[in-house]
Amino acid sequence: MSTHLKLAAAVALATGFALAVPAHAQFAKPEDAVKYRKAVMFIQGQTLPRLGAMAQGKTPYDQAQAIANAETLVFTSRLFPAAFGAGTDKGDTRALPVIWTDTAKFKRYQDDLGAATAKLLNAAKAGGGADALKGPFGEVAQTCKGCHDDFRKD
Amino acid sequence: MSTHLKLAAAVALATGFALAVPAHAQFAKPEDAVKYRKAVMFIQGQTLPRLGAMAQGKTPYDQAQAIANAETLVFTSRLFPAAFGAGTDKGDTRALPVIWTDTAKFKRYQDDLGAATAKLLNAAKAGGGADALKGPFGEVAQTCKGCHDDFRKD
Repeated sequence: MSTHLKLAAAVALATGFALAVPAHAQFAKPEDAVKYRKAVMFIQGQTLPRLGAMAQGKTPYDQAQAIANAETLVFTSRLFPAAFGAGTDKGDTRALPVIWTDTAKFKRYQDDLGAATAKLLNAAKAGGGADALKGPFGEVAQTCKGCHDDFRKD
Repeated sequence: MSTHLKLAAAVALATGFALAVPAHAQFAKPEDAVKYRKAVMFIQGQTLPRLGAMAQGKTPYDQAQAIANAETLVFTSRLFPAAFGAGTDKGDTRALPVIWTDTAKFKRYQDDLGAATAKLLNAAKAGGGADALKGPFGEVAQTCKGCHDDFRKD
């Protein structure tokens, strides 16, 4: 089993959520899918910096908050791939067409995000304090940045 | 223990998520909180009708999808109360001022939503088919509507 699959399985066990079953979103209109994935990423964009601030000692370490925020990242990371379906490349979106051509690479980022957020949640649960968050936080942030660099208009 | 608390405890057990610890969101700007709660409710607004369509036989019953969508409702219902903090009554929002005065009633809706979405998830997991979703779906929909009627501008 790959490291990613192992981590996904660990998260599935830890959370009780059936990670093997993606929520195949059914969107009435392509613009709903665009708005949905933006909503998910806005939530993630509000959540990740809280963990970063904690990891960097800018805000006090609070394990319960670290866990709650990491859970939000784990959960929401499962929601948005389904919102990049065929026909959702138009409208008010910065998504680059390559998302729908280099699907293997795009999928790899999704898997990486799932694995990195799972590591972050595990680190928060393990209770190693702010220092333990640093590595996994950086990995999540790098995954976001890599995907944005490759698949999002500047 | 109240029915609500029992259900919340059941969901905490079922999902492994620490429901007792709300994710106290820390928003840099009030408008971020407004955008955050709208993002959460947009996701919910996309998710609930899928369960409604299944409950009413408009789309084929699919237990895995029912569970995944109910999990999204359970999880997201925990996210947005923290986004109604003090000072977030302004800007691009339809939130009525009474949210910040009748806090007990607003909190009751949050509790009701947690309980109703938990019931819906339990019904999906129990595998009683589309019919079993009807009652809990209606309860979630009524809770949304009640809160919107009382606390949202037309």
